[in-house]
Amino acid sequence: MIKILVDTLGGDNSPSANVEGAVKALSSIEDLEVVLVGDEKVISEQLKNFTFDASRLSIVHAPDEISCNDKPTEAIKTKKGSSLYKCYEILRTDETVHGMVSTGSTGAILAGAVLRLGRIKGIKRPAFCPILPTMKGSLVGICDSGANVDCDSVQLTQFAVMADLYLKKAYGVESPKVALLNVGVEEEKGDLLRKETFAALKANDKINFVGNMEGRDLLSGNYDLVVCDGFSGNVLLKSTEGACLEMLKILKKTFMKNLKNRIAAGILKKDVYALKDFMDYNNYGGAVLLGANKTVVKGHGSSKAVSVFHCIEQAYNMEKKNLREAISQAVAQAE
Amino acid sequence: MIKILVDTLGGDNSPSANVEGAVKALSSIEDLEVVLVGDEKVISEQLKNFTFDASRLSIVHAPDEISCNDKPTEAIKTKKGSSLYKCYEILRTDETVHGMVSTGSTGAILAGAVLRLGRIKGIKRPAFCPILPTMKGSLVGICDSGANVDCDSVQLTQFAVMADLYLKKAYGVESPKVALLNVGVEEEKGDLLRKETFAALKANDKINFVGNMEGRDLLSGNYDLVVCDGFSGNVLLKSTEGACLEMLKILKKTFMKNLKNRIAAGILKKDVYALKDFMDYNNYGGAVLLGANKTVVKGHGSSKAVSVFHCIEQAYNMEKKNLREAISQAVAQAE
Repeated sequence: MIKILVDTLGGDNSPSANVEGAVKALSSIEDLEVVLVGDEKVISEQLKNFTFDASRLSIVHAPDEISCNDKPTEAIKTKKGSSLYKCYEILRTDETVHGMVSTGSTGAILAGAVLRLGRIKGIKRPAFCPILPTMKGSLVGICDSGANVDCDSVQLTQFAVMADLYLKKAYGVESPKVALLNVGVEEEKGDLLRKETFAALKANDKINFVGNMEGRDLLSGNYDLVVCDGFSGNVLLKSTEGACLEMLKILKKTFMKNLKNRIAAGILKKDVYALKDFMDYNNYGGAVLLGANKTVVKGHGSSKAVSVFHCIEQAYNMEKKNLREAISQAVAQAE
Repeated sequence: MIKILVDTLGGDNSPSANVEGAVKALSSIEDLEVVLVGDEKVISEQLKNFTFDASRLSIVHAPDEISCNDKPTEAIKTKKGSSLYKCYEILRTDETVHGMVSTGSTGAILAGAVLRLGRIKGIKRPAFCPILPTMKGSLVGICDSGANVDCDSVQLTQFAVMADLYLKKAYGVESPKVALLNVGVEEEKGDLLRKETFAALKANDKINFVGNMEGRDLLSGNYDLVVCDGFSGNVLLKSTEGACLEMLKILKKTFMKNLKNRIAAGILKKDVYALKDFMDYNNYGGAVLLGANKTVVKGHGSSKAVSVFHCIEQAYNMEKKNLREAISQAVAQAE
């Protein structure tokens, strides 16, 4: 049995999306147990809308919310009645609990992982690894996407090793093509950090390092994993998502421009919806935090139930495939 | 009279696009003089296709090309028969020449500016500032987009000051909204470089600093200028361009999927072409290099004639509005 905590507070659609997502996960995964953390009364009320295996669901009462307006480090230390504080308390002390899914404040989730949960032995810093769809139908991971704005080459190499194992274990990618985000594809490009990391990744025979990647090739499908410091990774992720969204917006405007266009858009409707669906992060779960002592999955702030469900599925898969154990071994071997 | 050199070698469509673009500029701008630098025989042959005011056009023979395969720093020192070497030689020694447009190797253009041309007094490093269209119909500049992978806050503040003046003078933007690229909008976000730069920009009463910007908002039209180190600026530019291009590709595929879609696409054709046109960098000229001793404009490697024309227009506008003088004064004042 894999036991996952679901933080029901902090997201734009919390708690309803989180509760519904958890119920969905229970019915889809047989050996999953879910603990809903939040306002017990509200959760119980919500649960009345669903049928589910009650023996695999429990509630922990922690009605306060850490919001995006709270200072993350402070909130995770002082807001002891908050659902996120409680989640980390349980993760830290209860050995039967494997992981957590939250759609709350990214900063507070990270702060909790670092300050309260701790890291896998040997890992210098945990890192976020979100997954995006590519134009070839494959997926591409970005690690780190924002947990660490200052990095050294040892950290970047650890990000590569952790995310490589994540893609292998959680997604079944056989030999992930790993690239280093850089300003050009040539080996000598970039700053000292990139040059050192390039050499370290090239020398690592455990991963399939294919060289530097420029920002424009993220969605090409030529890469399965992009390794980067959290600052440029954050820029990469957000500018790619932002540009896609702006393009969809302008396309919608074009479709609605006049009657003629609206008719044409009507014909294309199904295919354009498929395109929109393809770009929708709700279909790809969340950004996992790799390197923490337990499995942590951060769903998008505006996650719907289906996205929460995918996040729980991700956490489940990571535990089922013993990802933490694999990372721990890989780090020990590297030392 | 403004006198601009046009490097006719190094681009994907060189020399024809460069020669045609120069002729176009001559007929559009009365007080412009153009010097075509490259293979004299080839240029003369190309010129036979056009009518133009021959008194404002001259040719300098330098038939060798610096390609993207050459090591920039080495090539700009040793390839003395190359058009780019020659351009910098003229810029350095001929006071009557104001600037240069090239569609050649970015690295070599930068190396030439730093090693052979020199900087405006007080400027620590020159920086690239490309311009993109936004969803509101305005333009947004990114400075630096790749000239400097390692930066300090003094450099970033200088980038802001230079690019702010560029937008004011070359594009007539009255009070450019200047943002700092960061991982979040809150003041305390980012690494030490971002925190120091935030404070410096906030304290600068010459520019309209509006705070941090996340990668996803580049095309929103809420900002006129984004200040960043060359590494993350390069990621921002390329990932935004890349995502837009991938979206256009997938859209084209959707349109061509079957007869039904092709008919609908036919109805939308004109508007979708307008969208494609809107995204086409050929319509926006090149990335100017701010802070060099003379005006340098770098056109996209795959520039067509219209793009070369816009690059020459940019160089002309920068000189006409005395941008270098204004930057020089601003730096002197800041010191």
